[in-house]
Amino acid sequence: MTYLHDCWYMVSWASDVGQQGVLPTQVMDQPIVVYRGASGALFAFDDRCRHKLAPLSRGRVEGDALRCMYHGLKYGPDGRCIQIPGRSDVPTNLRVRSYPVQEAHSAIWLWMGDPARADRTLIPPFEGIDHPEWKMIPGQMDYEAHFSLINENLLDLSHVPFVHRNSFGGGEEIPLDPEVSIPMQEGEVTQLDRGLRIVFSARSGPVAPMLRAEVGDVADTWTTNDFLVPGIFLLTIELFKPGSIAAAGGRRPADEMPLHRNFSCQAVTPRSARRTTYFYAFGPWKKSEVTAEGFAQVAEMAFAEDREMITAQQKVIDASPGVKPKLLHMDKRAAMFDAVVQRLIAQESQNSDRSLPEPAP
Amino acid sequence: MTYLHDCWYMVSWASDVGQQGVLPTQVMDQPIVVYRGASGALFAFDDRCRHKLAPLSRGRVEGDALRCMYHGLKYGPDGRCIQIPGRSDVPTNLRVRSYPVQEAHSAIWLWMGDPARADRTLIPPFEGIDHPEWKMIPGQMDYEAHFSLINENLLDLSHVPFVHRNSFGGGEEIPLDPEVSIPMQEGEVTQLDRGLRIVFSARSGPVAPMLRAEVGDVADTWTTNDFLVPGIFLLTIELFKPGSIAAAGGRRPADEMPLHRNFSCQAVTPRSARRTTYFYAFGPWKKSEVTAEGFAQVAEMAFAEDREMITAQQKVIDASPGVKPKLLHMDKRAAMFDAVVQRLIAQESQNSDRSLPEPAP
Amino acid sequence: MTYLHDCWYMVSWASDVGQQGVLPTQVMDQPIVVYRGASGALFAFDDRCRHKLAPLSRGRVEGDALRCMYHGLKYGPDGRCIQIPGRSDVPTNLRVRSYPVQEAHSAIWLWMGDPARADRTLIPPFEGIDHPEWKMIPGQMDYEAHFSLINENLLDLSHVPFVHRNSFGGGEEIPLDPEVSIPMQEGEVTQLDRGLRIVFSARSGPVAPMLRAEVGDVADTWTTNDFLVPGIFLLTIELFKPGSIAAAGGRRPADEMPLHRNFSCQAVTPRSARRTTYFYAFGPWKKSEVTAEGFAQVAEMAFAEDREMITAQQKVIDASPGVKPKLLHMDKRAAMFDAVVQRLIAQESQNSDRSLPEPAP
Repeated sequence: MTYLHDCWYMVSWASDVGQQGVLPTQVMDQPIVVYRGASGALFAFDDRCRHKLAPLSRGRVEGDALRCMYHGLKYGPDGRCIQIPGRSDVPTNLRVRSYPVQEAHSAIWLWMGDPARADRTLIPPFEGIDHPEWKMIPGQMDYEAHFSLINENLLDLSHVPFVHRNSFGGGEEIPLDPEVSIPMQEGEVTQLDRGLRIVFSARSGPVAPMLRAEVGDVADTWTTNDFLVPGIFLLTIELFKPGSIAAAGGRRPADEMPLHRNFSCQAVTPRSARRTTYFYAFGPWKKSEVTAEGFAQVAEMAFAEDREMITAQQKVIDASPGVKPKLLHMDKRAAMFDAVVQRLIAQESQNSDRSLPEPAP
Repeated sequence: MTYLHDCWYMVSWASDVGQQGVLPTQVMDQPIVVYRGASGALFAFDDRCRHKLAPLSRGRVEGDALRCMYHGLKYGPDGRCIQIPGRSDVPTNLRVRSYPVQEAHSAIWLWMGDPARADRTLIPPFEGIDHPEWKMIPGQMDYEAHFSLINENLLDLSHVPFVHRNSFGGGEEIPLDPEVSIPMQEGEVTQLDRGLRIVFSARSGPVAPMLRAEVGDVADTWTTNDFLVPGIFLLTIELFKPGSIAAAGGRRPADEMPLHRNFSCQAVTPRSARRTTYFYAFGPWKKSEVTAEGFAQVAEMAFAEDREMITAQQKVIDASPGVKPKLLHMDKRAAMFDAVVQRLIAQESQNSDRSLPEPAP
Repeated sequence: MTYLHDCWYMVSWASDVGQQGVLPTQVMDQPIVVYRGASGALFAFDDRCRHKLAPLSRGRVEGDALRCMYHGLKYGPDGRCIQIPGRSDVPTNLRVRSYPVQEAHSAIWLWMGDPARADRTLIPPFEGIDHPEWKMIPGQMDYEAHFSLINENLLDLSHVPFVHRNSFGGGEEIPLDPEVSIPMQEGEVTQLDRGLRIVFSARSGPVAPMLRAEVGDVADTWTTNDFLVPGIFLLTIELFKPGSIAAAGGRRPADEMPLHRNFSCQAVTPRSARRTTYFYAFGPWKKSEVTAEGFAQVAEMAFAEDREMITAQQKVIDASPGVKPKLLHMDKRAAMFDAVVQRLIAQESQNSDRSLPEPAP
């Protein structure tokens, strides 16, 4: 499994790094320390002192520098060692690798590839948790599973009636007529430069139980789902009065005010081959009578259902060396997304001047 | 270590699979799901959906079929996929491996070899826990040890005075005269087609403490111990009044009513190279004043003593690569049993048409 | 990493082996059983019966012999099997490896190399915990780290102002002027036959907070630190009235009574590649007003600080294959000690007649 490096990975909510805080984190097996200096700026280094490999995340912020608290070596904002206690000179090549780091949309983002190509505009359009139009509640959970399994889950919503029959289904039994196959909507897929856009529409369909008080029992639904590298899921759901989509000629009823809108942004970050963090914020627009808490409760129940299934799936995969999945029609979108990732990886290795600033060991 | 495949393995007590229940189990590293369909019949499959390897043991029984609850694929009783939600046709080769499964003697038995050779008559003559002649209490425990260590323990009862001095010895100290070697009875061994029969007799020996109220202090004992593949221990102990065996010319006093009789059946099932389940039922005949509970209490104390020793032994073995055991006279029966197993394995690979119904990955 | 074998390793405090007690222990991946026989003598064997590898540490002492409590094999003080229950003869080559073992300075010491070269005089001059001149409290802790990391920590006290700012620093913040490098005293190092002697002296320096009531705020300090193979740290700290060292021409003020003296002996014993036991006794001389408990409290806080840092360092090392430390000036003493160890290992393999009494498996 090759990872994409020229890419921003969400590593934490911004609130996890306090004022001058030091945060140990990890992306793609790489332990990294993120800290905020006295100037308020963020810095990120490999989380090991170049002297004896003590973790810098046990260190102390001094100004915008970070001091290792084993033997006192001090590193400047660019990762160069600027002081060794008991010694007046410092070897010029004594440095740790530093990473581009950005704070955006209430989150911390790390660029894992060539720093020369770090482009702030590639940070995905997450919605901040204090956005004026949304009532969002943030959360996160750790998975003991490879991040691709979670991406595949998010790219194929055909699991919803089975895995989420209790949460999104509101506990109502989904009729599974053994004689009749169940129709699944595939959505319209557009390839984006760094991901896919999948648009679903449902006409005069049943409304999710928790929204019925606000919206009524039946509505048209317009769903826009962007899935961007490395594993960013952005989902906007809009409910319109029944018939609106037909009246708009099958397109989004742009002239009509939705009855309800909710938004979810999720970020899947690989920590190691079997550990992944799943960040999420979920909530309705400000107008909704449903509270963000109400939303979060259902969403977190659903996320727990996914995690239970995917963690169990990972265990079976690990116990089945040599057994490959048999891909079916519902795996088409995951395959399309994988093609995007492979294109970007190929592009990245072409661009690479192979001079990443990893200091020689 | 090669396992015997053409053989019934006990995987659980029958009560563990309820009405239409789904039971995840494992034999010889193979995760398997056993379920009972609406018809009451039992079925067993590899515990992974052929689509994306989700565990079928998280699935739902529908009639005699089993539906994977990740993406909804449904498998018929023979392991063929018969429905994929959202799709009208099903690829003909989409199937999971199924296993012959039988309910017998209050237990569930799986045939791990060629289904064409699965022979119900080879299920060992376990005694059911609701047998009219016996007061039996069932139990089980998991070992973190290779199953052969447990088999060897059951095949060599010379450990009893040492390991079981507190349980079977009733807490009485066994005299260990440092100058005198301790006599051990080796028993008469007969080779069976699928195991060994070992018969011990003891004339006018001391009676186990818990049976003295019923039997008296001294008795003749006639013990028949069948040990069958893969690791089935069947032990009948009969106590006769002193002198009976001599009067019968050294044979079992067939014309005489025993003073007491008890029976134990045990099954050793390899889950993986270092996990084994030990199933047992232990009890006296219906006539006995000793309750099955009283028996079970002593037996479970003894089984815990064995487990403690064998688990410790396994740890030493694992920490001692390259150090082989030195076999002694008491290991003769284990060697004879191993010869039976090797003969059956050789026979199995000769018979095998190498067309096990494992679907191509 | 090669270990030194011709060497005494501390494996426990003597009190851990009671009267006729049996103690399982481990040195350099080797599980060993130590027991005290009826005569009061100590014996040490590989902790596995030669029959089926059951642990002898679950055995029973009989006189000066040890009986395996699985099948009853009995081993004499030299490791030869002297009895097999049920058998009148014993194969002459049935034996377990035995190790030279000594009780000294309240501790148990094992010689891991050629028994022919075991030399009691090489046991390091630990101070017993019931020594008449010292108030010593013993302790120990286990590390999940390679023992060389602990040795390096003890050989380079430049970590003290950083790691021990709370314990030895008494909670006072050590000023870390970011513009000025911090002077470190390197000490005078003498090479010993089996280690190093490092002598530090400090003139009119601040006294550790807990000793100020006894000694005053300022004192001259004379510190003698012997570090011997395999990882024996012997530290004597003497405080003299200010000016004493200058008056003695820079040498230890031999004619003057110290104001205070304290002693610490520590032993670092490798159990396995990632488990190490750290034994210590720490205390002031009998005259001190400071109790041994007071000393132990500060010392154990400091030892916990070390363990926290070193355990974290070990995790980073294990997560960083191929990344080597960059040695700096403060690592000079560790390099000198390593040279001593390498010299002794070379000498050991030269002397070795390669006929260690390990019985053929």
